[in-house]
Amino acid sequence: MSGTAQIGVTGLAVMGRNLARNFARNGLTVALHNRTHARTEALVEEFGDEGSFVPARTAEEFVAALERPRRLVVMVKAGEPTDAVIEEFAPLLEDGDVIIDGGNAHFEDTRRRERELRERGIHFVGAGISGGEEGALNGPSIMPGGSAESYESLGPLLERIAAKAPDGTPCVSHVGPDGAGHFVKMVHNGIEYADMQLIGEAYHLLRAVAGYSPARIAETFRSWNEGRLDSYLIEITAQVLAHTDAATGEPFVDVVADQAEQKGTGRWTVQIALDLGVPVSGIAEAVFARSLSGHGELRNASRSLPGPTARPLDEKEAAAFADRVEQALYASKIVSYTQGFHMVQAGSEAYDWDVDPGAVASLWRAGCIIRAAFLDRIRAAYDAQPELPSLLGDKGFADEIGAAQDDWREVVATAAKQGVPAPGFAAALSYYDALRAERLPAALTQGQRDYFGAHTYRRTDRDGVFHTLWGGDRSEVDAG
Amino acid sequence: MSGTAQIGVTGLAVMGRNLARNFARNGLTVALHNRTHARTEALVEEFGDEGSFVPARTAEEFVAALERPRRLVVMVKAGEPTDAVIEEFAPLLEDGDVIIDGGNAHFEDTRRRERELRERGIHFVGAGISGGEEGALNGPSIMPGGSAESYESLGPLLERIAAKAPDGTPCVSHVGPDGAGHFVKMVHNGIEYADMQLIGEAYHLLRAVAGYSPARIAETFRSWNEGRLDSYLIEITAQVLAHTDAATGEPFVDVVADQAEQKGTGRWTVQIALDLGVPVSGIAEAVFARSLSGHGELRNASRSLPGPTARPLDEKEAAAFADRVEQALYASKIVSYTQGFHMVQAGSEAYDWDVDPGAVASLWRAGCIIRAAFLDRIRAAYDAQPELPSLLGDKGFADEIGAAQDDWREVVATAAKQGVPAPGFAAALSYYDALRAERLPAALTQGQRDYFGAHTYRRTDRDGVFHTLWGGDRSEVDAG
Repeated sequence: MSGTAQIGVTGLAVMGRNLARNFARNGLTVALHNRTHARTEALVEEFGDEGSFVPARTAEEFVAALERPRRLVVMVKAGEPTDAVIEEFAPLLEDGDVIIDGGNAHFEDTRRRERELRERGIHFVGAGISGGEEGALNGPSIMPGGSAESYESLGPLLERIAAKAPDGTPCVSHVGPDGAGHFVKMVHNGIEYADMQLIGEAYHLLRAVAGYSPARIAETFRSWNEGRLDSYLIEITAQVLAHTDAATGEPFVDVVADQAEQKGTGRWTVQIALDLGVPVSGIAEAVFARSLSGHGELRNASRSLPGPTARPLDEKEAAAFADRVEQALYASKIVSYTQGFHMVQAGSEAYDWDVDPGAVASLWRAGCIIRAAFLDRIRAAYDAQPELPSLLGDKGFADEIGAAQDDWREVVATAAKQGVPAPGFAAALSYYDALRAERLPAALTQGQRDYFGAHTYRRTDRDGVFHTLWGGDRSEVDAG
Repeated sequence: MSGTAQIGVTGLAVMGRNLARNFARNGLTVALHNRTHARTEALVEEFGDEGSFVPARTAEEFVAALERPRRLVVMVKAGEPTDAVIEEFAPLLEDGDVIIDGGNAHFEDTRRRERELRERGIHFVGAGISGGEEGALNGPSIMPGGSAESYESLGPLLERIAAKAPDGTPCVSHVGPDGAGHFVKMVHNGIEYADMQLIGEAYHLLRAVAGYSPARIAETFRSWNEGRLDSYLIEITAQVLAHTDAATGEPFVDVVADQAEQKGTGRWTVQIALDLGVPVSGIAEAVFARSLSGHGELRNASRSLPGPTARPLDEKEAAAFADRVEQALYASKIVSYTQGFHMVQAGSEAYDWDVDPGAVASLWRAGCIIRAAFLDRIRAAYDAQPELPSLLGDKGFADEIGAAQDDWREVVATAAKQGVPAPGFAAALSYYDALRAERLPAALTQGQRDYFGAHTYRRTDRDGVFHTLWGGDRSEVDAG
């Protein structure tokens, strides 16, 4: 038996509801299901006129409402709830049907689920969806993994509801097999953490060093948003900073408690990057900055620690400093994305996904939180050189960072001297300088490791593995 | 049936062999066992006159050779080999016997093994052992977890073989239940990574900015080793830097390939710290620096990136700069240990271990890689104030870091301006400045999160959880 709905959504909390409405608004017949049926009824009652919905009371009804191959989107909490829903539906499905997990699953879970369902003849597509509630309704960026075959059936539907890049391309494409979609979504979130941290540092420096008010900084961000930093996060930063708290008449940012929370994808990104051996220092510093902000007791115990007193700048100096901060922010952002794309490439290699980094940049051009004009240039860089080992190897970005570096260095130095924490800017600069270094002190590290643990070393002038008899006559022995 | 050996060692690779010899040299009768019996025979043949050994050919013989309660030390590879050996011996043991795992196990594995063996009436002690081959033979730092009861039987034996601190105290004590010992050993290794990275940066700065030769830098480290930086790692750094490669006549450090390797405990430390919400940026930067150094292709593609040219310093300026680097190194080291001890305290709280941080500092005073005069002062700080929320809350360290901060800031600024990567120094300074900040840009981060994801925020002026209707009239609603 086969129904008429081209797609189904189960789990009708705000993300699921908005995604279902988005499908319906784009002309698809959408089967609806929720554990508590009242939620399904509420959706149909409130938004039924937006398109064609088929409400289903039971799992069986829901499955029966879908045309073959069935495509059902699961929008429930990551972890056990997802497994429970899969277990509820899988026995009702047939060969070639597709389950789509649109939640924020860990990509290792997605790999497991895909493998288990594949053995049962069912396609499982872990699809990262970014853009929040608003994106789900009006056009998210969608990062589907799973089999290429499943994308043939699913892709055209997702393309209808996805955000459209400025050139009209839908922000959805097949990222790669099994967990590739959720992996790339995780890296997206990691980059989002880094972007937000860098913006926070720029704000802090403009406030503490340039002496600007939040309103003035909002203006600064608005003007940056008209240049190469043009992006959703810069835009909303200006909005947040311009906002006045109605209760106190104070700048909104001054009444918000300065303890940042996190939901886990930033932390995952760093943990997986460590396993992959990819330095993602910008993301790590962003995650650490959030956790540090939440350690109230530690901060209280440390407020009296000595620091320098900032020298106030005059208007002209302040404006010049603000320009420098823009350079530092942009250069650090290039480094963040360099680290993020390195991680995408390392993950692709480790899991044999054959992910196209240019296509990933393309997906992020609209709909998602890190959407930015900048991403179109990353796409172009990878399109021109798909084997680019690093974004910094692209001539355009290398030239820009080269032009920005004096100001970037000046800003990091100023932050250090004036006592303003700028861990993201500093980590990005260290990464840049380490990558371009002719020689790194890693040679000393290897020497130390050989001294205390006989861990051996390689030489610059010939192949092989060596050990020095540090406790003996200090001659070198072959340790290969 | 009960034998005469007070302790047994199974797994006689270099660490196990040296530990067995250490027990024997200290008057204990030591049962020996190894999968390949030839290794047991070789030990007895070569070192039999050092003390009393009871070689055993089979697991049964080995167990029979031990007096009750049996204490057998497993010195095999972490992971599956450890589980296999436990499974081999556990069925032969009786109530109250003790298995000690002296390898570098992940503390979660130790927790599992302790639980499983406890149900079978056997004590399982995960004991971190630091000091390398040489320490195992002549006195390691030992960090045993497991039950307090097991320590009653085991402690006196371990105290005989452990390193002795300058005041004569053995560097071993009961760290806490189940995985506490391996956890603390992991953090030890994380701090070791950070220490080595900071030393590498100091070396790099002296080389690139002060223009010192490796031999001259060796001298500098030797003089630092006579002051507050007095430590094993500073001492061996001087040795490594003073060494000349016989084959080329070049400084040894210049012929070693600058690609640092790692075995995993630094990575674990950062991954667990992320789960615990503890900022360990110094350890993370150290791990990232090692992985970055190994990305040859990336580095090759980046060597032509533009950077500043260092201005050579004259002799007097160089000497002044070297003094500043000492200040920066010391201040950054205080931060590393602050982060490491924060992690020890957070782990203790998360797993209900009741670890005494002063006792941990005491354990690390001798025998282990990070042994340093400095640790005696950390011990004293925690002994004076066991509830210290952060090492930086200790007046002595706060005063020292206060006195060092101008130079520290100058060094971080110089590194940034002259293009020398100093991620460890910079991360430590950012951490210091973030902790003491009156307000952090985390408030802006929360505002952004509320804007794009309705993640809510708290206010500084009243309790509750709030959300601003950013897409609407921007009024604030209660979201509690």
